[in-house]
Amino acid sequence: MTYSVGVVGAAGFAGIELLRILSSHPRFDLVAATSDALAGAPVAEAYPAFQGLTDLRFSTHKEADLASCDAVFLAVPHTAALAMATELHGRGVTVIDLSADFRLKDAAVYERWYGVPHTQQDLLARAVFGLPELFGDELAQAAAARSQGDAVLVGCAGCYPTATSLAAAPALRGGYGDARATIIVDAISGMTGAGKGCSERTHFCFANENVEAYGVGAHRHTPEIEQILGIAGQDRLVFTPHLAPLNRGLLSTVSIPLPATGPVPTTAELVAAYKDFYGDSPLVTVLDEGVLPRTASVTGTCRAHIGVVVNERARMIVALGAIDNLGKGAAGQAVQCANIVFGLEQDTGLLGIAVPV
Amino acid sequence: MTYSVGVVGAAGFAGIELLRILSSHPRFDLVAATSDALAGAPVAEAYPAFQGLTDLRFSTHKEADLASCDAVFLAVPHTAALAMATELHGRGVTVIDLSADFRLKDAAVYERWYGVPHTQQDLLARAVFGLPELFGDELAQAAAARSQGDAVLVGCAGCYPTATSLAAAPALRGGYGDARATIIVDAISGMTGAGKGCSERTHFCFANENVEAYGVGAHRHTPEIEQILGIAGQDRLVFTPHLAPLNRGLLSTVSIPLPATGPVPTTAELVAAYKDFYGDSPLVTVLDEGVLPRTASVTGTCRAHIGVVVNERARMIVALGAIDNLGKGAAGQAVQCANIVFGLEQDTGLLGIAVPV
Amino acid sequence: MTYSVGVVGAAGFAGIELLRILSSHPRFDLVAATSDALAGAPVAEAYPAFQGLTDLRFSTHKEADLASCDAVFLAVPHTAALAMATELHGRGVTVIDLSADFRLKDAAVYERWYGVPHTQQDLLARAVFGLPELFGDELAQAAAARSQGDAVLVGCAGCYPTATSLAAAPALRGGYGDARATIIVDAISGMTGAGKGCSERTHFCFANENVEAYGVGAHRHTPEIEQILGIAGQDRLVFTPHLAPLNRGLLSTVSIPLPATGPVPTTAELVAAYKDFYGDSPLVTVLDEGVLPRTASVTGTCRAHIGVVVNERARMIVALGAIDNLGKGAAGQAVQCANIVFGLEQDTGLLGIAVPV
Amino acid sequence: MTYSVGVVGAAGFAGIELLRILSSHPRFDLVAATSDALAGAPVAEAYPAFQGLTDLRFSTHKEADLASCDAVFLAVPHTAALAMATELHGRGVTVIDLSADFRLKDAAVYERWYGVPHTQQDLLARAVFGLPELFGDELAQAAAARSQGDAVLVGCAGCYPTATSLAAAPALRGGYGDARATIIVDAISGMTGAGKGCSERTHFCFANENVEAYGVGAHRHTPEIEQILGIAGQDRLVFTPHLAPLNRGLLSTVSIPLPATGPVPTTAELVAAYKDFYGDSPLVTVLDEGVLPRTASVTGTCRAHIGVVVNERARMIVALGAIDNLGKGAAGQAVQCANIVFGLEQDTGLLGIAVPV
Repeated sequence: MTYSVGVVGAAGFAGIELLRILSSHPRFDLVAATSDALAGAPVAEAYPAFQGLTDLRFSTHKEADLASCDAVFLAVPHTAALAMATELHGRGVTVIDLSADFRLKDAAVYERWYGVPHTQQDLLARAVFGLPELFGDELAQAAAARSQGDAVLVGCAGCYPTATSLAAAPALRGGYGDARATIIVDAISGMTGAGKGCSERTHFCFANENVEAYGVGAHRHTPEIEQILGIAGQDRLVFTPHLAPLNRGLLSTVSIPLPATGPVPTTAELVAAYKDFYGDSPLVTVLDEGVLPRTASVTGTCRAHIGVVVNERARMIVALGAIDNLGKGAAGQAVQCANIVFGLEQDTGLLGIAVPV
Repeated sequence: MTYSVGVVGAAGFAGIELLRILSSHPRFDLVAATSDALAGAPVAEAYPAFQGLTDLRFSTHKEADLASCDAVFLAVPHTAALAMATELHGRGVTVIDLSADFRLKDAAVYERWYGVPHTQQDLLARAVFGLPELFGDELAQAAAARSQGDAVLVGCAGCYPTATSLAAAPALRGGYGDARATIIVDAISGMTGAGKGCSERTHFCFANENVEAYGVGAHRHTPEIEQILGIAGQDRLVFTPHLAPLNRGLLSTVSIPLPATGPVPTTAELVAAYKDFYGDSPLVTVLDEGVLPRTASVTGTCRAHIGVVVNERARMIVALGAIDNLGKGAAGQAVQCANIVFGLEQDTGLLGIAVPV
Repeated sequence: MTYSVGVVGAAGFAGIELLRILSSHPRFDLVAATSDALAGAPVAEAYPAFQGLTDLRFSTHKEADLASCDAVFLAVPHTAALAMATELHGRGVTVIDLSADFRLKDAAVYERWYGVPHTQQDLLARAVFGLPELFGDELAQAAAARSQGDAVLVGCAGCYPTATSLAAAPALRGGYGDARATIIVDAISGMTGAGKGCSERTHFCFANENVEAYGVGAHRHTPEIEQILGIAGQDRLVFTPHLAPLNRGLLSTVSIPLPATGPVPTTAELVAAYKDFYGDSPLVTVLDEGVLPRTASVTGTCRAHIGVVVNERARMIVALGAIDNLGKGAAGQAVQCANIVFGLEQDTGLLGIAVPV
Repeated sequence: MTYSVGVVGAAGFAGIELLRILSSHPRFDLVAATSDALAGAPVAEAYPAFQGLTDLRFSTHKEADLASCDAVFLAVPHTAALAMATELHGRGVTVIDLSADFRLKDAAVYERWYGVPHTQQDLLARAVFGLPELFGDELAQAAAARSQGDAVLVGCAGCYPTATSLAAAPALRGGYGDARATIIVDAISGMTGAGKGCSERTHFCFANENVEAYGVGAHRHTPEIEQILGIAGQDRLVFTPHLAPLNRGLLSTVSIPLPATGPVPTTAELVAAYKDFYGDSPLVTVLDEGVLPRTASVTGTCRAHIGVVVNERARMIVALGAIDNLGKGAAGQAVQCANIVFGLEQDTGLLGIAVPV
């Protein structure tokens, strides 16, 4: 038995990656791919990786019969998902939202960081957070509800929050970190993270052979990370994202202070705790002591590689998470959430291995 | 039913790509991966894309029980396959050789271009050439023989010959090209084509932000291309390979003179002829008139994209072929050949789509 | 004594490189940099390499007092230079035009390839071709005229024509090539060659990890190369440009047939002839036999590296030329031409060496 | 008047960059370039950027007449400089050491982090630290001593310490930072930082399309940064270096806590303080509020771009420094130090501007 799914915003980077994943997913049948900008154009013309493989054309959001889908993925900019999700959910369609519109539980935080009103707070209250390794219970409940006939809305975690939280959560939930100290996150993303829009930032000749930070102190993923890590409203997260000249890949380096006094755990101890924490998570691999994550090793996949080191001298845990920002950081994670909601194995259709070189 | 397979030289770039492909192949069971250099080391240590996915370790060629495999892939340097192939074939094992040792039908040509004696000419005479779209009959016969219990040896085409010949063959076999004129091939390869060996050529800082030609007039793929195109011994192929700063991808631009007189076919006519030629080839896509191949659109796959343009003014066909040098140019093609020899659909396990961006 | 110079179109890639070169030129004083699009903006804001080094702002073409300059460089798209050059030249200003408007001697050829009327044919007839190593006499005469008070117009050679012609000219002028055979040019350019405009072609994520051809059989540099090589109207040039993922650098691989019969020169003979040909050209280096040009070795400079190989077997000369498409292929060559016209050493202000790694 | 200089270790990345800079330096005459590994080879063969520009060959350290130089640059691995510097200095030669051997004032710290004995502690006590913007007085005294005939030894700052300290020093020396809080440094380097040695880390195919951290908690630049920032022995620096796929460029992101209480300065206030701090430093540019440094804007130069942002919410200063790791981070800074020691303007021969694109 298969489920029919649609992708809204299919011509963007996360959208087209959804199309790639869904095109070989054994249980989801792609029936609609919408893009108002490219409506009418063959998918294979805009993205020639699909040449010879599909005659699918983009349709407008309007003309696609999304209401008859079992699930719809929304790969649209924030604010655009507010009304769409509400309408589809209201018609009984399960919605997997990749935008930021249903991630932040506190509408006031959303409104402060995104500078727009949150018009769908009722639905927000019912949204499930889409980061299976850390919020599996929510998703399991959603799956149970869906099997009873309820529509479900999943607000999937963003790319930086995913890599950062997967790296940090075992240390924090395990009580290793100082509960009041400031956590520093410096993360590096490939250029697909900057989106499909053409600008001087994304022009090859400006991006290539360059590294830079952006959005210092102001990136909208900050409150999302705080929410996931359970430190919302504490003003103790410093998040600095950077861009590097690669297409895909995101590495988050998280510095978590240990308490000022007391024994310092060894790296081996932390690694063991991390391995235990992710023991049931097939898409997260904790690397052995002495091995550090490389983004290239997860490129093109929905996998995460996590490494952790204790800096005894400075009483600091340095945890590192590597993902593909379009895979585990966006499209892959959305499919993983959908898998769970539909009662499938979470890694269904997500078993690919990165090209080794 | 599955077949047990081994990979010799599994730690090289083609070898490790074989491991990646075979690890999700529905009908081939990987039972041995050898590397004398890395024997004993976990595959996932040398290539962390496999972290968390396999406990497999490289073994020595010697200790691996290759003789009990249904098939063995040889991903070794030329000369190294001569004895190995002979021994395994003699023991009834089907051998898929990725080296250059069993590609050239004329041992004298091999000896001239590779500067070493060909010690296995009996077996060479029985070798099948591994380029399914152009030599499908040979492979079909081999499949028939194998199903009767015979061991089979396939000498798979090289990366440049594959891209070049897929681009040129329909024009030449279709009689469009001038039968006596010189054909010019300028091809550009990603750096995996230069192999895993560390040198100043492969050092990031020398390869990055650089384009250069190499082996001008002397590259060993020259006689192989001539053989495939049926112009061996005619001294009318000029082949110039280039390196560009990308990991994977190979574009071959082939300039084929039209006869000096007579009508000039249109591009549309050629495109139609090419589409017809590859109508039964699921892994080759001929692009519509006006569309040119991009290597990125086939990266990580066993697919080929072919484009063709008629330059009326200069009476020249310009045919372009894009492949992943490690995919359709090496490991993927080897698996495709093995699929055929074992009676499977040729694209079994090779259905992946390139990341669209 | 210094000369005052202006740059029109200073915010484009060739324009900004002119600003970089001119900012340290000992004899040219930059007094105006125009960009209608960025008028009013500090140069250092658009191109932060200039941060802390200049307070210069872009001005509009109109407001800049170009008529009082000794020389003006036009780094504008084709057609835009037609009227500008005529007006400035008419007011006694020496014009160094980097556009295509005054390169092609035959206005009909210009009109055919560019699809627009050439409105300034009188001035075209007086334009000097800007490729000093091959048309030094023209420039020397222009210098003499300028020293008598005449204004001079130089139409600088394009990037592909420069690399291609520097590689091919010694073979052709030296009578080595077959005078009737077709010459094949496959060239690879870095992405700055695609210009500053944002598009899917220039977006990092589409350009990176990709190689592709474009403009096959139709690139407008074709007739320019034919003109330079003295084969205009003979329809025997096939030119295929490619893009590779690097910022700067252009490699042209030129296959020139030797006559069908007669003795074949050795590579050593050709190299000697090439070295002789460029003996007085300080910015062109002919590499020793066995050494091939790398674009990285000339990046950021106005230098050209040339290599040549004789393929005896196929009776073919393969000549290769590497330049920086924005250096010797655009801004550097424009300054070189200006140097000559103003009676300076041709490499004044152009002595930089590429970063070695 | 010019000074004769030699470069020891000239075939490495820092060494060859020294050769490039010195080849156009108006006051230093390069008389020797040594490399035991490449002795006898033409510089232009190993680094073809020099093709046609010099006939210089590498000599052995021994055969070069270094004792007769006015100054010798040592671009050698740590430990190798210990004896060399001592011998040359003893013979009255000014030594500019790029290795780590004379950077750390406390020999015990050197011995702990480098794991080898410091055999030249007398000379170490006399060494001057080479980071002109922060230790200008030391260098001025050295210049005075040299002008009296004394030999001088400068131990130049490393690449990470330079970028980090230039970014952090104004905040710390200005008393803005919390004097007891832990400082977090996450830095990203281009691959030339990994050196010329061939390894899997530096192989193009492993480095390209990848980002990774290395040496977490253990990088030897840690105590050097602490020393520069005046927090040696306080165990409150966490330094995590990363590699990204570019040749040159280093960005250091430094998170400096503000005191837990008291007023928070504005970003504008900090920017003004930074501009004031570097008012006399021609090679350091503090960017305006809202502008962040890009490594590409300083590539190929000895310049540094510094940006600073106050994160009011988390009471944190985020300071960023961008340099070329081989320029201001190695060879350029060594020449800058030599300029000062020889009484020249500090930016003599270092006026180049990065290619703007």
